[in-house]
Order: sequence, then structure tokens, then C-alpha cells
Amino acid sequence: MTGMPSYEAHIDISHLPGVADPAGSTVERALPALGYDNVSGLKIARSIKLVLECASEAEAKRQVTEMCERILANPVIENYAVSVTELARP
Amino acid sequence: MTGMPSYEAHIDISHLPGVADPAGSTVERALPALGYDNVSGLKIARSIKLVLECASEAEAKRQVTEMCERILANPVIENYAVSVTELARP
Repeated sequence: MTGMPSYEAHIDISHLPGVADPAGSTVERALPALGYDNVSGLKIARSIKLVLECASEAEAKRQVTEMCERILANPVIENYAVSVTELARP
Repeated sequence: MTGMPSYEAHIDISHLPGVADPAGSTVERALPALGYDNVSGLKIARSIKLVLECASEAEAKRQVTEMCERILANPVIENYAVSVTELARP
């Protein structure tokens, strides 16, 4: 504990347009055999939740974006969207 | 095309409380070595987007929930949240 406020970050990571999503395609192809023949455009993405202690919401968002570029996402083939909300202090 | 309205479904699939998230733990343990020592509670989840043609929004939500139970999620270890919105007709 640092005494700094805590923020919850929610990151949605999906494939860039044009990048294949083989897991999603496989699930979509399996659905008609189970009786679901009205489904299209199925995409599987990743989402990450984390808590961080930071001086401000702007700084939290900056750090999470930097973490996405460096380790959480692969910017060559993935898009990410970051949202940050302050957690109530206990 | 069936002439029925289209709905976009968004499904968030996360581990049930108490179920280990080894991928999330591994990423969290790697962060301090990169200079991020203020992060905790990192969880990695899955999200699925799909489009389905259905008679009504209630029926679309019912079908997506059934698909989650049968193939999209593993209800023994996973939670899922379904939201459905109608797509504008072209």
C-alpha cells in the first residue's frame, strides 16, 4: 500500500480488421451441427482486468496503455481499448 | 437472409470466483521486472461477439444463453454475462 488511489482498468483486446481469428471461425463452423444455423461474424477476443495504484486517473491510463504496447497486447495484430475507473477508498 | 431482425450479442466469460487464472497470474508476476510494481488482481477473460438472426430480442438472448451453456463457456468453472442489442436494418 502506497497511500495512492486505486484504479480498476478494463482492457479489451481484439484482432485488427483483416487478421484471421481461427478460434472464432472454428466455433462458428461448429454451431450449425448443434442446431444453431443463424449465427455469423463470431469473434473471440481477450479482456484483462487489473487494479493499479497511481497518482491520478490520467497517469493510470497512460501506464495501462504503455503496458498494452509492451506486454499485454500485440499491436502488430491486435487492437486494444482501455478504460480506467477510480475505486472507492476503503 | 431470413428477413428476421439481426442482433449483436456480446458475451463476457470469466473464471468463477476461486478458480485459478494461471495466465493472469503469470502476466502479473512478469510485470515488476518491467518496472510495473503497482499492479494487482490481474485477470484474463474471454469475450465473444456474434451476430444472429432471430424473431425477437428475448429469443436472441435465450439462444445465446443456451449456446453459452452448451459450447461457448464451461459453466463448471466459468461465469458468463450476455448482452444483446438489435442491429439497425440496412
